[in-house]
Amino acid sequence: MRDVAIIGVGMIPFGRRDEDSLMDLLAYASLKALDDAGLGDKSVNAVYVGNMGGGIIQHQTAIASSLVDRLSLLPAAAETVENGPASGGSAVKNGLLAVASGYYDYVLVVGGEKMREVTGWKATDFVSTMTHPEVEYPYGVTLPGMAGMFTRLYMEKYGVTREHLTAVAIKNQDMGALNPYAHVEMSISREGILDSPHSVVNNPPVADPLHLYDACPVSDGAAAVILCPLEIAKKTGKPPVLIAGFGQATDTHTLQERDDPTDLKAVSLAAKQAFEMAKLKPADIHVAELHDAFTILEIAESEHVGFFKKGEGAIAALAGKTKLGGQIPINVSGGLKARGHPVGATGVAQVVEITFQLRHELPKNRQVKGAENGLTVNFGGFGNNVLAFVLRRVQQ
Amino acid sequence: MRDVAIIGVGMIPFGRRDEDSLMDLLAYASLKALDDAGLGDKSVNAVYVGNMGGGIIQHQTAIASSLVDRLSLLPAAAETVENGPASGGSAVKNGLLAVASGYYDYVLVVGGEKMREVTGWKATDFVSTMTHPEVEYPYGVTLPGMAGMFTRLYMEKYGVTREHLTAVAIKNQDMGALNPYAHVEMSISREGILDSPHSVVNNPPVADPLHLYDACPVSDGAAAVILCPLEIAKKTGKPPVLIAGFGQATDTHTLQERDDPTDLKAVSLAAKQAFEMAKLKPADIHVAELHDAFTILEIAESEHVGFFKKGEGAIAALAGKTKLGGQIPINVSGGLKARGHPVGATGVAQVVEITFQLRHELPKNRQVKGAENGLTVNFGGFGNNVLAFVLRRVQQ
Repeated sequence: MRDVAIIGVGMIPFGRRDEDSLMDLLAYASLKALDDAGLGDKSVNAVYVGNMGGGIIQHQTAIASSLVDRLSLLPAAAETVENGPASGGSAVKNGLLAVASGYYDYVLVVGGEKMREVTGWKATDFVSTMTHPEVEYPYGVTLPGMAGMFTRLYMEKYGVTREHLTAVAIKNQDMGALNPYAHVEMSISREGILDSPHSVVNNPPVADPLHLYDACPVSDGAAAVILCPLEIAKKTGKPPVLIAGFGQATDTHTLQERDDPTDLKAVSLAAKQAFEMAKLKPADIHVAELHDAFTILEIAESEHVGFFKKGEGAIAALAGKTKLGGQIPINVSGGLKARGHPVGATGVAQVVEITFQLRHELPKNRQVKGAENGLTVNFGGFGNNVLAFVLRRVQQ
Repeated sequence: MRDVAIIGVGMIPFGRRDEDSLMDLLAYASLKALDDAGLGDKSVNAVYVGNMGGGIIQHQTAIASSLVDRLSLLPAAAETVENGPASGGSAVKNGLLAVASGYYDYVLVVGGEKMREVTGWKATDFVSTMTHPEVEYPYGVTLPGMAGMFTRLYMEKYGVTREHLTAVAIKNQDMGALNPYAHVEMSISREGILDSPHSVVNNPPVADPLHLYDACPVSDGAAAVILCPLEIAKKTGKPPVLIAGFGQATDTHTLQERDDPTDLKAVSLAAKQAFEMAKLKPADIHVAELHDAFTILEIAESEHVGFFKKGEGAIAALAGKTKLGGQIPINVSGGLKARGHPVGATGVAQVVEITFQLRHELPKNRQVKGAENGLTVNFGGFGNNVLAFVLRRVQQ
């Protein structure tokens, strides 16, 4: 395998973007990444689009072919990669392997979603299309519903409380308030969402014991990266970021088939594979983007990837160990919670954020000082298809 | 790049399969390929699913995660690849590059579609979702409509007649009648569809000048292949088939933006890339599966890949040069015309058919004697995203 590096990244502010089409979102993020890579007269050989809802929401297929034409990248190869909320991660993975194989030198990976075209129950229904078609979807199971049940089990097994969950929500909203790409650029207080008499109005239950501020918003957005062989990347202007490790694992499609539903085996295995390939351990990571579609997931993933022992992730979050400046800063971007979760974009946006961090180009109030190694976890289904990437700053 | 070979193939009869779900179709074809590969206790590392309509037709996403669980292949990596009617080819491509990179040793690629859940105008509308979302779809352009206009231009430029088109239809139906996997296992006669007074009833116009028997049916079906490094494949029981060449090219999304709409640049370029990688020329190919969604496409592609000069494909077809036993047998399977065109399955089914041919395991009335090199062309959109594979029988 050739070593593969990230030489360009681009992202557009996530949020509600009624004025833009899905194609617009994908094109804007792609152009920013192409510009950032400064390819000059070199062209991209292949394009991978991470997207989940083009067919269901936009009633559109073959969007990769449409995009490559719009970006004037003809005759570059192009296809869409879909893996539920891990579609972005799966697009990065296939771009990585395509460059690693030696077949392509320059690959554009862009993930995007325009989810706010569907609202209310239709948005929940769209997300539910990733559940099992025979034993889950027909019975009305939703992702928030699964997350609620998962949280209850976690609470019973490990003594997690709403106070712990709220600590994650506050941290991620605080960081999101500083991130111009975030959908919800707004701090929240413990008083407002947990302690005051009005907290039930501000922060109503979504799927007990999860409340509104435990869940990510429904967002529009897109993010893109340009990949090339490390040897070429070393000659570019910006510090290249190596994709040092990659892992992916699947687990039973349904939660109820797992021996212990609180054990996210696919997260553990994907992270283990990524660490082994990178020859690094969890303690070597300086910054991480975890898939906090719900606050409980950030806590659970921080344990399963090896930052904390089982049952200690919640305590660590409450103690501030996952804040900027803490032991392991998690979701300094605001995470899915505040940056938003346009499903196809998320896995790519995580890689973009870590690239910003490892290039040391963020403002002081967002930068993890001297970060050299980063981790991303993109969580498909309810943990049934998980991807992890270990990124490393390369000294030029 | 590591050399990558096909060590197992599986396919289910295409047609109307009301009793099976999309997941059933994918699982059946996968199990046949896994069985054919005889992996024993070795497990598959990754699964690629080629599918276009899961979201729109089945209202289902993340089908790759669901499949890998159903096949008991956990914790294998999995994702869906979508590229309109070339989704199957794109799935094979990504499986190929993943093994070539060295990251995975055993990959299952399965393409499938259950299209007959939508009928009438809804089936045409589903296929139209691959057209341009701004300048084609809203104006009601359909794929048969585009093919009709393309045929008219081809007729005017090269003197192609309905007699030439009918020769392709008759050849492919004759071959389909011998293929147990074909959707339409039925011969047709020139008299019945062109010459008799009843031909207008038997073979009504679909999109003038194309008639019913110029078009592929709407089919359900699935096909699968198992890929692994050639060095491992050489130790298996069956003659390994090397993916000797691969090419992919895009062209303008819309036909009207092309300088010469009869020039299918993406077909020429994808085939050229595949031939160069394989170090072979068109004359070295013994059997080809071309993407005859419409009869005119088999003729046009046979020229663009280099079997015949421009304008001579129709003459060659009428002269029988593309029949079994002819200069270059094309679509001995019956092609999309007779085998059917479950869109996500087609690109994989073409590779399965060529593997059957190169292993010399078909009955005499279907086998291209001594075939050593084969070509497949999978045509996305209206030629805006095309994949070509050159396969080669490897001497053990």
